[in-house]
Amino acid sequence: MAPHKAPDSSRRSDRSRRAIYDAALALVGESGYRRTTIEGIAARAGVGKQTIYRWWPSKAAVLMEAFLDLAARAAEEAAPQVGGTGGQAGGTDPQAGAAEYGIPDTGDLAADLKLVLRATVDELNDPLMEAPTRALTAEGIVDAKLGAEFVEKLLDPQLALYVTRLRAAQEAGQLRPDADPRIALELLIAPLTHRWLLRTLPLTHAYADTIVDYALGGLAPRS
Amino acid sequence: MAPHKAPDSSRRSDRSRRAIYDAALALVGESGYRRTTIEGIAARAGVGKQTIYRWWPSKAAVLMEAFLDLAARAAEEAAPQVGGTGGQAGGTDPQAGAAEYGIPDTGDLAADLKLVLRATVDELNDPLMEAPTRALTAEGIVDAKLGAEFVEKLLDPQLALYVTRLRAAQEAGQLRPDADPRIALELLIAPLTHRWLLRTLPLTHAYADTIVDYALGGLAPRS
Repeated sequence: MAPHKAPDSSRRSDRSRRAIYDAALALVGESGYRRTTIEGIAARAGVGKQTIYRWWPSKAAVLMEAFLDLAARAAEEAAPQVGGTGGQAGGTDPQAGAAEYGIPDTGDLAADLKLVLRATVDELNDPLMEAPTRALTAEGIVDAKLGAEFVEKLLDPQLALYVTRLRAAQEAGQLRPDADPRIALELLIAPLTHRWLLRTLPLTHAYADTIVDYALGGLAPRS
Repeated sequence: MAPHKAPDSSRRSDRSRRAIYDAALALVGESGYRRTTIEGIAARAGVGKQTIYRWWPSKAAVLMEAFLDLAARAAEEAAPQVGGTGGQAGGTDPQAGAAEYGIPDTGDLAADLKLVLRATVDELNDPLMEAPTRALTAEGIVDAKLGAEFVEKLLDPQLALYVTRLRAAQEAGQLRPDADPRIALELLIAPLTHRWLLRTLPLTHAYADTIVDYALGGLAPRS
Protein backbone atom coordinates (compact mmCIF):
# COMPACT_ATOMS: atom_id res chain seq x y z
CA MET A 1 0.00 0.00 0.00
CA ALA A 2 2.93 2.30 0.58
CA PRO A 3 3.34 3.37 -3.08
CA HIS A 4 -0.29 4.55 -3.12
CA LYS A 5 -0.01 6.64 -0.02
CA ALA A 6 1.22 9.85 -1.65
CA PRO A 7 -1.36 9.98 -4.50
CA ASP A 8 -4.24 9.14 -2.09
CA SER A 9 -3.18 11.84 0.29
CA SER A 10 -2.80 14.27 -2.59
CA ARG A 11 -6.31 13.40 -3.85
CA ARG A 12 -7.65 13.93 -0.32
CA SER A 13 -5.85 17.28 -0.19
CA ASP A 14 -7.32 18.31 -3.52
CA ARG A 15 -10.80 17.38 -2.33
CA SER A 16 -10.34 19.33 0.92
CA ARG A 17 -8.90 22.29 -0.88
CA ARG A 18 -11.80 22.43 -3.31
CA ALA A 19 -14.30 22.03 -0.44
CA ILE A 20 -12.61 24.90 1.41
CA TYR A 21 -12.69 27.15 -1.67
CA ASP A 22 -16.36 26.39 -2.28
CA ALA A 23 -17.24 26.99 1.38
CA ALA A 24 -15.29 30.25 1.46
CA LEU A 25 -16.94 31.59 -1.70
CA ALA A 26 -20.42 30.52 -0.60
CA LEU A 27 -20.04 32.10 2.84
CA VAL A 28 -18.60 35.38 1.63
CA GLY A 29 -21.34 35.61 -0.97
CA GLU A 30 -24.04 34.93 1.61
CA SER A 31 -22.78 36.85 4.64
CA GLY A 32 -20.21 39.32 3.32
CA TYR A 33 -16.49 39.45 3.94
CA ARG A 34 -16.47 40.56 7.56
CA ARG A 35 -18.87 37.94 8.85
CA THR A 36 -17.04 35.10 7.11
CA THR A 37 -14.67 33.34 9.53
CA ILE A 38 -12.07 30.58 9.27
CA GLU A 39 -14.22 28.60 11.72
CA GLY A 40 -17.29 29.02 9.51
CA ILE A 41 -15.40 27.98 6.39
CA ALA A 42 -13.98 24.92 8.17
CA ALA A 43 -17.41 23.85 9.44
CA ARG A 44 -19.02 24.22 6.03
CA ALA A 45 -16.15 22.45 4.25
CA GLY A 46 -16.20 19.60 6.79
CA VAL A 47 -12.55 20.04 7.74
CA GLY A 48 -10.83 21.03 10.96
CA LYS A 49 -9.84 24.67 11.19
CA GLN A 50 -6.23 23.58 11.73
CA THR A 51 -6.30 22.21 8.16
CA ILE A 52 -7.06 25.71 6.91
CA TYR A 53 -4.47 27.36 9.15
CA ARG A 54 -1.86 24.86 7.91
CA TRP A 55 -2.36 25.98 4.30
CA TRP A 56 -3.23 29.66 4.59
CA PRO A 57 -2.04 32.42 6.93
CA SER A 58 -5.34 34.34 7.00
CA LYS A 59 -8.96 34.56 5.94
CA ALA A 60 -7.98 37.04 3.23
CA ALA A 61 -5.47 34.55 1.84
CA VAL A 62 -8.04 31.72 1.67
CA LEU A 63 -10.51 33.95 -0.09
CA MET A 64 -7.98 35.34 -2.51
CA GLU A 65 -6.97 31.84 -3.57
CA ALA A 66 -10.56 30.62 -3.69
CA PHE A 67 -11.17 33.53 -5.97
CA LEU A 68 -8.18 32.84 -8.20
CA ASP A 69 -9.41 29.27 -8.49
CA LEU A 70 -12.92 30.42 -9.39
CA ALA A 71 -11.57 32.82 -12.02
CA ALA A 72 -9.40 30.03 -13.43
CA ARG A 73 -12.42 27.73 -13.65
CA ALA A 74 -14.49 30.45 -15.33
CA ALA A 75 -11.65 31.14 -17.77
CA GLU A 76 -11.33 27.43 -18.49
CA GLU A 77 -15.01 27.27 -19.39
CA ALA A 78 -14.60 30.29 -21.65
CA ALA A 79 -11.35 28.91 -23.12
CA PRO A 80 -12.74 26.84 -26.04
CA GLN A 81 -14.49 29.97 -27.34
CA VAL A 82 -11.37 32.10 -27.03
CA GLY A 83 -9.21 29.31 -28.47
CA GLY A 84 -11.56 29.11 -31.44
CA THR A 85 -10.34 32.41 -32.79
CA GLY A 86 -6.66 31.95 -32.17
CA GLY A 87 -6.32 32.37 -28.40
CA GLN A 88 -3.55 30.71 -26.47
CA ALA A 89 -4.57 27.33 -25.13
CA GLY A 90 -3.69 28.14 -21.53
CA GLY A 91 -2.43 25.70 -18.92
CA THR A 92 -4.38 23.02 -17.13
CA ASP A 93 -3.29 24.11 -13.66
CA PRO A 94 -6.29 25.85 -12.09
CA GLN A 95 -3.93 27.58 -9.64
CA ALA A 96 -2.42 29.52 -12.54
CA GLY A 97 -5.49 31.70 -12.79
CA ALA A 98 -7.12 33.36 -15.77
CA ALA A 99 -3.89 35.23 -16.42
CA GLU A 100 -2.43 32.19 -18.14
CA TYR A 101 -5.02 32.32 -20.90
CA GLY A 102 -3.83 35.58 -22.40
CA ILE A 103 -5.62 37.67 -24.97
CA PRO A 104 -5.66 36.25 -28.50
CA ASP A 105 -3.60 37.97 -31.15
CA THR A 106 -5.15 37.25 -34.54
CA GLY A 107 -3.81 40.51 -35.93
CA ASP A 108 -7.29 42.05 -35.70
CA LEU A 109 -7.20 44.15 -32.52
CA ALA A 110 -10.91 45.03 -32.50
CA ALA A 111 -11.98 41.42 -32.93
CA ASP A 112 -9.59 40.18 -30.24
CA LEU A 113 -10.73 42.81 -27.74
CA LYS A 114 -14.41 42.11 -28.41
CA LEU A 115 -13.81 38.43 -27.80
CA VAL A 116 -12.10 38.97 -24.47
CA LEU A 117 -14.53 41.66 -23.29
CA ARG A 118 -17.50 39.45 -24.22
CA ALA A 119 -15.93 36.68 -22.14
CA THR A 120 -15.53 39.19 -19.28
CA VAL A 121 -19.22 40.08 -19.58
CA ASP A 122 -20.07 36.37 -19.30
CA GLU A 123 -17.84 35.95 -16.26
CA LEU A 124 -19.31 38.97 -14.50
CA ASN A 125 -22.86 37.83 -15.28
CA ASP A 126 -22.15 34.28 -14.04
CA PRO A 127 -24.33 33.80 -10.92
CA LEU A 128 -21.58 31.68 -9.34
CA MET A 129 -19.17 34.65 -9.50
CA GLU A 130 -21.67 37.39 -8.69
CA ALA A 131 -22.05 37.35 -4.91
CA PRO A 132 -18.44 36.56 -3.91
CA THR A 133 -17.00 39.04 -6.42
CA ARG A 134 -19.29 41.76 -5.15
CA ALA A 135 -18.48 40.96 -1.51
CA LEU A 136 -14.73 40.99 -2.07
CA THR A 137 -14.80 44.14 -4.22
CA ALA A 138 -16.99 45.99 -1.72
CA GLU A 139 -14.65 45.10 1.16
CA GLY A 140 -11.61 46.18 -0.86
CA ILE A 141 -13.28 49.54 -1.47
CA VAL A 142 -13.51 50.30 2.25
CA ASP A 143 -10.43 48.34 3.42
CA ALA A 144 -7.35 49.75 1.68
CA LYS A 145 -5.08 46.89 2.73
CA LEU A 146 -7.38 44.18 1.39
CA GLY A 147 -8.03 46.30 -1.69
CA ALA A 148 -4.30 46.54 -2.43
CA GLU A 149 -3.94 42.76 -2.10
CA PHE A 150 -6.94 42.27 -4.38
CA VAL A 151 -5.43 44.56 -7.02
CA GLU A 152 -1.96 43.03 -6.78
CA LYS A 153 -3.00 39.38 -6.85
CA LEU A 154 -6.20 39.36 -8.89
CA LEU A 155 -6.50 42.50 -10.99
CA ASP A 156 -2.98 43.47 -12.04
CA PRO A 157 -2.15 40.08 -13.62
CA GLN A 158 -5.25 40.51 -15.79
CA LEU A 159 -4.39 44.09 -16.69
CA ALA A 160 -0.88 42.95 -17.69
CA LEU A 161 -2.48 40.81 -20.41
CA TYR A 162 -4.06 43.91 -21.92
CA VAL A 163 -0.77 45.78 -21.78
CA THR A 164 0.90 42.92 -23.67
CA ARG A 165 -1.80 42.77 -26.33
CA LEU A 166 -1.97 46.55 -26.75
CA ARG A 167 1.81 46.80 -27.05
CA ALA A 168 1.75 44.18 -29.80
CA ALA A 169 -0.98 46.22 -31.52
CA GLN A 170 1.17 49.33 -31.20
CA GLU A 171 4.09 47.56 -32.87
CA ALA A 172 1.72 46.43 -35.62
CA GLY A 173 0.57 50.01 -36.16
CA GLN A 174 -2.96 49.37 -34.84
CA LEU A 175 -2.64 51.56 -31.74
CA ARG A 176 -1.68 55.22 -31.65
CA PRO A 177 2.10 55.38 -31.20
CA ASP A 178 1.71 57.95 -28.40
CA ALA A 179 -0.84 55.93 -26.40
CA ASP A 180 0.19 54.44 -23.05
CA PRO A 181 -1.17 50.87 -23.09
CA ARG A 182 -1.55 50.85 -19.28
CA ILE A 183 -3.95 53.80 -19.52
CA ALA A 184 -5.56 52.74 -22.81
CA LEU A 185 -6.77 49.48 -21.26
CA GLU A 186 -8.80 51.42 -18.70
CA LEU A 187 -11.04 52.80 -21.48
CA LEU A 188 -11.85 49.20 -22.34
CA ILE A 189 -12.34 47.52 -19.00
CA ALA A 190 -13.51 50.32 -16.68
CA PRO A 191 -16.88 50.82 -18.44
CA LEU A 192 -17.71 47.12 -17.98
CA THR A 193 -16.70 47.17 -14.31
CA HIS A 194 -18.65 50.39 -13.77
CA ARG A 195 -21.87 48.99 -15.24
CA TRP A 196 -21.53 45.77 -13.36
CA LEU A 197 -20.59 47.17 -9.96
CA LEU A 198 -23.11 50.01 -9.95
CA ARG A 199 -25.78 48.17 -11.99
CA THR A 200 -26.53 51.28 -14.05
CA LEU A 201 -27.64 49.45 -17.22
CA PRO A 202 -27.49 45.87 -18.54
CA LEU A 203 -24.04 44.44 -19.22
CA THR A 204 -24.28 42.70 -22.61
CA HIS A 205 -22.10 41.52 -25.50
CA ALA A 206 -23.48 44.39 -27.60
CA TYR A 207 -22.26 46.82 -24.96
CA ALA A 208 -18.78 45.24 -24.95
CA ASP A 209 -18.64 45.56 -28.75
CA THR A 210 -19.71 49.21 -28.60
CA ILE A 211 -17.07 50.06 -26.01
CA VAL A 212 -14.36 48.56 -28.25
CA ASP A 213 -15.68 50.50 -31.26
CA TYR A 214 -15.85 53.80 -29.39
CA ALA A 215 -12.48 53.35 -27.65
CA LEU A 216 -10.58 52.40 -30.80
CA GLY A 217 -12.38 54.74 -33.21
CA GLY A 218 -12.76 57.63 -30.79
CA LEU A 219 -15.80 59.72 -30.00
CA ALA A 220 -14.77 62.63 -32.20
CA PRO A 221 -15.71 62.36 -35.89
CA ARG A 222 -12.97 60.99 -38.15
CA SER A 223 -12.56 63.22 -41.16
CA MET B 1 -41.89 88.28 19.00
CA ALA B 2 -44.40 86.43 16.81
CA PRO B 3 -43.06 87.71 13.46
CA HIS B 4 -39.64 86.29 14.30
CA LYS B 5 -40.89 82.88 15.19
CA ALA B 6 -40.87 81.35 11.71
CA PRO B 7 -37.35 82.51 10.68
CA ASP B 8 -35.89 81.46 14.06
CA SER B 9 -37.45 78.05 13.79
CA SER B 10 -36.28 77.76 10.20
CA ARG B 11 -32.71 78.69 11.27
CA ARG B 12 -32.91 76.12 14.03
CA SER B 13 -34.10 73.55 11.49
CA ASP B 14 -31.25 74.40 9.14
CA ARG B 15 -28.77 74.01 11.97
CA SER B 16 -30.26 70.66 13.00
CA ARG B 17 -30.38 69.45 9.44
CA ARG B 18 -26.75 70.31 8.85
CA ALA B 19 -25.77 68.69 12.17
CA ILE B 20 -27.66 65.54 11.15
CA TYR B 21 -25.98 65.44 7.73
CA ASP B 22 -22.55 65.89 9.27
CA ALA B 23 -23.20 63.23 11.89
CA ALA B 24 -24.53 60.79 9.29
CA LEU B 25 -21.55 61.26 6.99
CA ALA B 26 -19.04 61.03 9.81
CA LEU B 27 -20.59 57.85 11.22
CA VAL B 28 -20.93 56.06 7.91
CA GLY B 29 -17.34 56.97 7.07
CA GLU B 30 -16.08 55.69 10.43
CA SER B 31 -18.23 52.59 10.97
CA GLY B 32 -19.64 51.67 7.57
CA TYR B 33 -23.20 51.74 6.35
CA ARG B 34 -24.59 48.80 8.29
CA ARG B 35 -23.34 49.87 11.69
CA THR B 36 -24.65 53.40 11.30
CA THR B 37 -28.03 53.81 13.03
CA ILE B 38 -30.64 56.55 13.31
CA GLU B 39 -30.00 56.48 17.07
CA GLY B 40 -26.28 56.97 16.53
CA ILE B 41 -26.83 59.83 14.11
CA ALA B 42 -29.27 61.51 16.52
CA ALA B 43 -26.87 61.19 19.47
CA ARG B 44 -23.94 62.59 17.50
CA ALA B 45 -26.01 65.43 16.02
CA GLY B 46 -27.42 66.31 19.47
CA VAL B 47 -31.05 65.94 18.37
CA GLY B 48 -33.80 63.54 19.38
CA LYS B 49 -34.25 60.58 17.07
CA GLN B 50 -37.88 61.66 16.56
CA THR B 51 -36.51 64.77 14.81
CA ILE B 52 -34.84 62.53 12.28
CA TYR B 53 -37.86 60.27 11.84
CA ARG B 54 -40.02 63.36 11.28
CA TRP B 55 -37.91 64.43 8.30
CA TRP B 56 -36.74 61.15 6.77
CA PRO B 57 -38.40 57.74 6.39
CA SER B 58 -35.19 55.69 6.74
CA LYS B 59 -31.48 55.62 7.38
CA ALA B 60 -30.87 55.27 3.64
CA ALA B 61 -32.91 58.42 3.00
CA VAL B 62 -30.92 60.47 5.56
CA LEU B 63 -27.65 59.31 4.08
CA MET B 64 -28.72 59.88 0.52
CA GLU B 65 -29.66 63.49 1.33
CA ALA B 66 -26.56 64.04 3.43
CA PHE B 67 -24.65 62.89 0.42
CA LEU B 68 -26.49 65.11 -2.03
CA ASP B 69 -25.77 68.01 0.30
CA LEU B 70 -22.08 67.09 0.48
CA ALA B 71 -21.85 66.82 -3.31
CA ALA B 72 -23.57 70.19 -3.64
CA ARG B 73 -21.11 71.77 -1.23
CA ALA B 74 -18.16 70.22 -3.09
CA ALA B 75 -19.58 71.42 -6.41
CA GLU B 76 -20.08 74.88 -4.96
CA GLU B 77 -16.43 75.00 -3.95
CA ALA B 78 -15.42 73.86 -7.44
CA ALA B 79 -17.89 76.26 -9.09
CA PRO B 80 -15.68 79.39 -9.42
CA GLN B 81 -13.18 77.33 -11.39
CA VAL B 82 -15.83 75.87 -13.66
CA GLY B 83 -17.56 79.24 -14.00
CA GLY B 84 -14.26 80.76 -15.07
CA THR B 85 -14.39 79.01 -18.40
CA GLY B 86 -18.02 79.59 -19.20
CA GLY B 87 -19.84 77.17 -16.88
CA GLN B 88 -23.36 77.81 -15.71
CA ALA B 89 -23.44 79.66 -12.43
CA GLY B 90 -25.67 77.12 -10.72
CA GLY B 91 -28.21 77.76 -7.98
CA THR B 92 -27.55 78.69 -4.41
CA ASP B 93 -29.80 75.96 -3.00
CA PRO B 94 -27.50 73.28 -1.61
CA GLN B 95 -30.39 70.79 -1.84
CA ALA B 96 -30.26 71.05 -5.62
CA GLY B 97 -27.10 68.98 -5.72
CA ALA B 98 -24.20 69.07 -8.14
CA ALA B 99 -26.59 68.34 -10.99
CA GLU B 100 -27.62 71.99 -11.08
CA TYR B 101 -24.14 73.12 -12.05
CA GLY B 102 -24.13 71.49 -15.46
CA ILE B 103 -21.15 71.00 -17.72
CA PRO B 104 -19.84 74.15 -19.41
CA ASP B 105 -20.35 74.53 -23.14
CA THR B 106 -17.65 76.82 -24.51
CA GLY B 107 -17.83 75.15 -27.91
CA ASP B 108 -14.60 73.26 -27.16
CA LEU B 109 -15.70 69.79 -26.11
CA ALA B 110 -12.26 68.54 -25.05
CA ALA B 111 -11.61 71.58 -22.85
CA ASP B 112 -15.05 71.39 -21.24
CA LEU B 113 -14.70 67.69 -20.49
CA LYS B 114 -11.23 68.13 -19.04
CA LEU B 115 -12.52 70.86 -16.78
CA VAL B 116 -15.37 68.78 -15.41
CA LEU B 117 -13.30 65.59 -15.08
CA ARG B 118 -10.55 67.49 -13.25
CA ALA B 119 -13.22 68.79 -10.85
CA THR B 120 -14.41 65.20 -10.41
CA VAL B 121 -10.86 64.14 -9.58
CA ASP B 122 -10.71 66.87 -6.93
CA GLU B 123 -14.06 65.79 -5.45
CA LEU B 124 -13.03 62.15 -5.31
CA ASN B 125 -9.69 63.03 -3.73
CA ASP B 126 -11.34 65.31 -1.14
CA PRO B 127 -10.73 63.64 2.26
CA LEU B 128 -14.17 64.84 3.42
CA MET B 129 -15.85 62.85 0.63
CA GLU B 130 -13.58 59.82 0.70
CA ALA B 131 -14.82 57.66 3.57
CA PRO B 132 -18.58 58.24 3.22
CA THR B 133 -18.48 57.84 -0.58
CA ARG B 134 -16.59 54.59 -0.25
CA ALA B 135 -18.95 53.29 2.45
CA LEU B 136 -22.08 54.11 0.47
CA THR B 137 -20.69 52.74 -2.81
CA ALA B 138 -19.50 49.53 -1.16
CA GLU B 139 -22.90 48.96 0.42
CA GLY B 140 -24.66 49.63 -2.91
CA ILE B 141 -22.45 47.01 -4.55
CA VAL B 142 -23.68 44.25 -2.23
CA ASP B 143 -27.20 45.61 -1.57
CA ALA B 144 -29.05 45.87 -4.88
CA LYS B 145 -31.92 47.92 -3.47
CA LEU B 146 -29.68 50.57 -1.94
CA GLY B 147 -27.50 50.48 -5.06
CA ALA B 148 -30.52 51.23 -7.27
CA GLU B 149 -31.49 54.17 -5.05
CA PHE B 150 -27.92 55.44 -5.14
CA VAL B 151 -27.86 55.29 -8.94
CA GLU B 152 -31.30 56.87 -9.36
CA LYS B 153 -30.83 59.73 -6.90
CA LEU B 154 -27.10 60.46 -7.01
CA LEU B 155 -25.53 59.06 -10.16
CA ASP B 156 -28.14 59.33 -12.92
CA PRO B 157 -28.68 63.10 -12.47
CA GLN B 158 -24.93 63.56 -12.96
CA LEU B 159 -24.83 61.28 -15.99
CA ALA B 160 -27.71 63.25 -17.52
CA LEU B 161 -25.44 66.30 -17.59
CA TYR B 162 -22.96 64.42 -19.75
CA VAL B 163 -25.73 63.29 -22.08
CA THR B 164 -26.84 66.90 -22.51
CA ARG B 165 -23.32 68.16 -23.18
CA LEU B 166 -22.47 65.30 -25.55
CA ARG B 167 -25.72 65.79 -27.48
CA ALA B 168 -24.87 69.47 -27.94
CA ALA B 169 -21.42 68.40 -29.18
CA GLN B 170 -23.06 66.00 -31.61
CA GLU B 171 -25.24 68.78 -33.00
CA ALA B 172 -22.11 70.93 -33.32
CA GLY B 173 -20.34 68.17 -35.27
CA GLN B 174 -17.82 67.45 -32.48
CA LEU B 175 -19.10 63.97 -31.64
CA ARG B 176 -19.51 61.05 -34.05
CA PRO B 177 -23.06 61.20 -35.40
CA ASP B 178 -23.53 57.47 -34.70
CA ALA B 179 -22.34 57.63 -31.06
CA ASP B 180 -24.87 57.08 -28.27
CA PRO B 181 -24.12 59.83 -25.71
CA ARG B 182 -25.37 57.63 -22.84
CA ILE B 183 -22.72 55.04 -23.68
CA ALA B 184 -20.05 57.54 -24.75
CA LEU B 185 -20.05 59.15 -21.30
CA GLU B 186 -19.02 55.85 -19.73
CA LEU B 187 -15.67 55.98 -21.55
CA LEU B 188 -15.07 59.30 -19.80
CA ILE B 189 -16.26 58.70 -16.25
CA ALA B 190 -15.79 54.95 -15.71
CA PRO B 191 -11.96 55.07 -15.84
CA LEU B 192 -11.93 57.70 -13.07
CA THR B 193 -14.36 55.73 -10.91
CA HIS B 194 -12.39 52.53 -11.54
CA ARG B 195 -9.07 54.07 -10.44
CA TRP B 196 -10.60 55.67 -7.42
CA LEU B 197 -12.67 52.72 -6.18
CA LEU B 198 -10.00 50.07 -6.74
CA ARG B 199 -7.00 52.35 -6.03
CA THR B 200 -5.05 50.88 -8.95
CA LEU B 201 -2.99 54.01 -9.69
CA PRO B 202 -3.07 57.69 -8.67
CA LEU B 203 -6.08 59.72 -9.78
CA THR B 204 -4.69 63.01 -11.11
CA HIS B 205 -5.59 65.91 -13.40
CA ALA B 206 -3.10 64.58 -15.94
CA TYR B 207 -4.95 61.27 -15.95
CA ALA B 208 -8.30 63.02 -16.52
CA ASP B 209 -6.81 64.92 -19.46
CA THR B 210 -5.39 61.74 -20.98
CA ILE B 211 -8.73 59.95 -20.71
CA VAL B 212 -10.43 62.81 -22.57
CA ASP B 213 -7.74 62.75 -25.27
CA TYR B 214 -7.91 58.99 -25.74
CA ALA B 215 -11.71 58.84 -25.65
CA LEU B 216 -12.24 61.65 -28.15
CA GLY B 217 -9.31 60.87 -30.44
CA GLY B 218 -9.57 57.09 -30.21
CA LEU B 219 -6.88 54.52 -29.54
CA ALA B 220 -6.49 53.54 -33.19
CA PRO B 221 -4.15 55.71 -35.25
CA ARG B 222 -5.84 58.49 -37.22
CA SER B 223 -4.64 58.40 -40.81
